[in-house]
Amino acid sequence: MRILGIDPGLAIVGWGVIEYSGSRFKTIAYGSIQTPAGMRTEERLYRIQKQMDLLFETYQPDAMAVEELFFTNNITTGIRVAEARGVILVSAEAHKVKIAEYTPPQVKQAVVGYGKAEKRQVISMVTMLLGLTEEPKPDDTADALAIAICHAHSDRSALAGYFNQ
Amino acid sequence: MRILGIDPGLAIVGWGVIEYSGSRFKTIAYGSIQTPAGMRTEERLYRIQKQMDLLFETYQPDAMAVEELFFTNNITTGIRVAEARGVILVSAEAHKVKIAEYTPPQVKQAVVGYGKAEKRQVISMVTMLLGLTEEPKPDDTADALAIAICHAHSDRSALAGYFNQ
Repeated sequence: MRILGIDPGLAIVGWGVIEYSGSRFKTIAYGSIQTPAGMRTEERLYRIQKQMDLLFETYQPDAMAVEELFFTNNITTGIRVAEARGVILVSAEAHKVKIAEYTPPQVKQAVVGYGKAEKRQVISMVTMLLGLTEEPKPDDTADALAIAICHAHSDRSALAGYFNQ
Repeated sequence: MRILGIDPGLAIVGWGVIEYSGSRFKTIAYGSIQTPAGMRTEERLYRIQKQMDLLFETYQPDAMAVEELFFTNNITTGIRVAEARGVILVSAEAHKVKIAEYTPPQVKQAVVGYGKAEKRQVISMVTMLLGLTEEPKPDDTADALAIAICHAHSDRSALAGYFNQ
């Protein structure tokens, strides 16, 4: 199964494509979509949707895993992230790709085994699990790969649960 | 100038198209895009974008006026509205339509002359200003027309300021 992990944002959308079979991961590609701060919001959103369309067409993932929004301190940033998230969801829907959503603690639990893990631990584990020689940059890209790994794990658990019945 | 006013939301997007020349308004069409609560979020967002595309193609507005997000009590609803707003902005951008954003107090000020006006006053004034025989329903549709009127007013003020120099 091929999974596209997405860490949504207006300035930076982290993305990562992985495949897994059994307990092995294969890293297909990863990167980020970045839009300049000086650009009109609607043009930034439009570019994000076009780039997402390209990712779906290029990598043909079976599922997209994306972070659920948690608003903490900055409401204005939260609104912009939610707007970007909306266009990302529409792009997935337009390409008939299944969407799975995970909270940050779920992602940390799946990758590090501890729901309150530090950001650096998550990035180290992603680098190790995927056998990468360097940490993916920027952090948003590493986060996107972590979300993809989280979906692979939960999908595997679902299968395990099924086979154990 | 032809203006499309939009009151964004996930369950209901209110919309209204008006034209103005001098101090006269002409109402072209108005209505709402509604998506059922049981439908997956990504499908609701996708339908909203498709319906928005249709509005742009059908009515060919010169500008879209949309409410700026103000988060008050319900953060979860706010996230959903922001996601819908994102796909609406992308649809406008894809059709190369200029976007203007107004806060609720700006809209009330422009329509009723008082930034803290009650919702019912806004709806009554919209009905009167546009010479409608009945109040537009649901309220989201009336709000969308109010936002369109607000944009007409501010555009007119900008022109007046220019000619007075």
